[in-house]
Amino acid sequence: MPRYKLTIEYDGGPFVGWQRQANGRSVQQALEEAILAFSGETAVVKGAGRTDAGVHALAQVAHVDLTGEWTADTVRDAVNAHLRPAPVAVLAAAAVDPEFDARFSAVKRHYLYRILDRRPPPALDRGRVWHVRARLDAQAMHAAAQALVGHHDFTTFRAAECQARTPIRTLDRLDVSREDGEIAIRASARSFLHSQVRSMAGALKKVGEGRWKVGEVGAALAARDRTRAGPVAPPDGLYLVAVDY
Amino acid sequence: MPRYKLTIEYDGGPFVGWQRQANGRSVQQALEEAILAFSGETAVVKGAGRTDAGVHALAQVAHVDLTGEWTADTVRDAVNAHLRPAPVAVLAAAAVDPEFDARFSAVKRHYLYRILDRRPPPALDRGRVWHVRARLDAQAMHAAAQALVGHHDFTTFRAAECQARTPIRTLDRLDVSREDGEIAIRASARSFLHSQVRSMAGALKKVGEGRWKVGEVGAALAARDRTRAGPVAPPDGLYLVAVDY
Repeated sequence: MPRYKLTIEYDGGPFVGWQRQANGRSVQQALEEAILAFSGETAVVKGAGRTDAGVHALAQVAHVDLTGEWTADTVRDAVNAHLRPAPVAVLAAAAVDPEFDARFSAVKRHYLYRILDRRPPPALDRGRVWHVRARLDAQAMHAAAQALVGHHDFTTFRAAECQARTPIRTLDRLDVSREDGEIAIRASARSFLHSQVRSMAGALKKVGEGRWKVGEVGAALAARDRTRAGPVAPPDGLYLVAVDY
Repeated sequence: MPRYKLTIEYDGGPFVGWQRQANGRSVQQALEEAILAFSGETAVVKGAGRTDAGVHALAQVAHVDLTGEWTADTVRDAVNAHLRPAPVAVLAAAAVDPEFDARFSAVKRHYLYRILDRRPPPALDRGRVWHVRARLDAQAMHAAAQALVGHHDFTTFRAAECQARTPIRTLDRLDVSREDGEIAIRASARSFLHSQVRSMAGALKKVGEGRWKVGEVGAALAARDRTRAGPVAPPDGLYLVAVDY
């Protein structure tokens, strides 16, 4: 049974998240319905990252097994044709080894968190950025972020509902920079805890506002206490940018 | 009576265009209603560029006269508060000389036209780009565009409904480049004819596809014949980027 690797872009706004849920339409469901419509097959699409409601993807990766022998380009084009009008697009499809697993074969995940820090609200990027009315100090945020890079217990930056067996993760990159009039936070790791990027973004925003000193982010990490993280940043600004294998 | 210069960002998708029209809601109307709601004044907002339905603005400029003496920041914030949930935002407001006229004082207008040239449809940029399924040759498009730069009779690239007294315009810049996996066409001129940028973009797309030779754009200009322009590009990809005074 051929296995296909799918690279997928989506606007998370209208979805309950990547994963199928009882309370609304998920990206996974939209893809599975499009696959059923084109192939007649009831297949399960397994994603590399289970993005939350409202979180976007520039290149989520998933795999799916189909019994029919389709060319990869046919899978891509046929799924896209049946996805309309959902804001989901298969950017690429490729036949892969049956041992390839979108989730477990991934060696690194890359996320971007966008903060529009200006007084007027976004008109073109509504739902695509976190709108913060005060201008943030990107340099202070970047300095604070470096305390989180490395092998740590991330209990502080973990959602209550996180199901990972351990809060230990290795964060390879957490860069904050000003790009085109907004703040870009770029995070890379083999894997993340539930809400980890949004939780880190929420803490860094406090530093950017001057409400937290640079050292408080590292201190919050060391405390291993979820109440020290501050509010989790909203999903709007988060993008799954790439998954490496 | 104080005059205010407003710099405005909007998503043109839900509007019938900049200008008030009987057949639906315009950006101008949204602004005038927000001004009425905050100040109690029935004012006319005059824009630098009358963008068509579906055309976006990163920084449209307009002026408005109010009898009340408001600080510029109050005008900006109050209009924004009353604009919600329309995807329009006043980025800046400034008190200006009563002789300032957003339309007639403008010395240069800058537009961007975005083409997403890939087979899969846009998921995140739907309504924000022209989706063309074949990859375009940006270099050939740029070479062809140079025939349009300068002082010319732009009859070929003018909409039938254009009300300008003369089809003569001076195009200062028409650059085509590949940026972040898409095609960016950047056009600058003191003023443009109705649909001129979209009409030029439509012709350049033909060159990018290889359906027109590079020289055909200049030949179409020289013909001064609207039927030579080819289809006008859709509004989705067009952005009024800036207006100089």
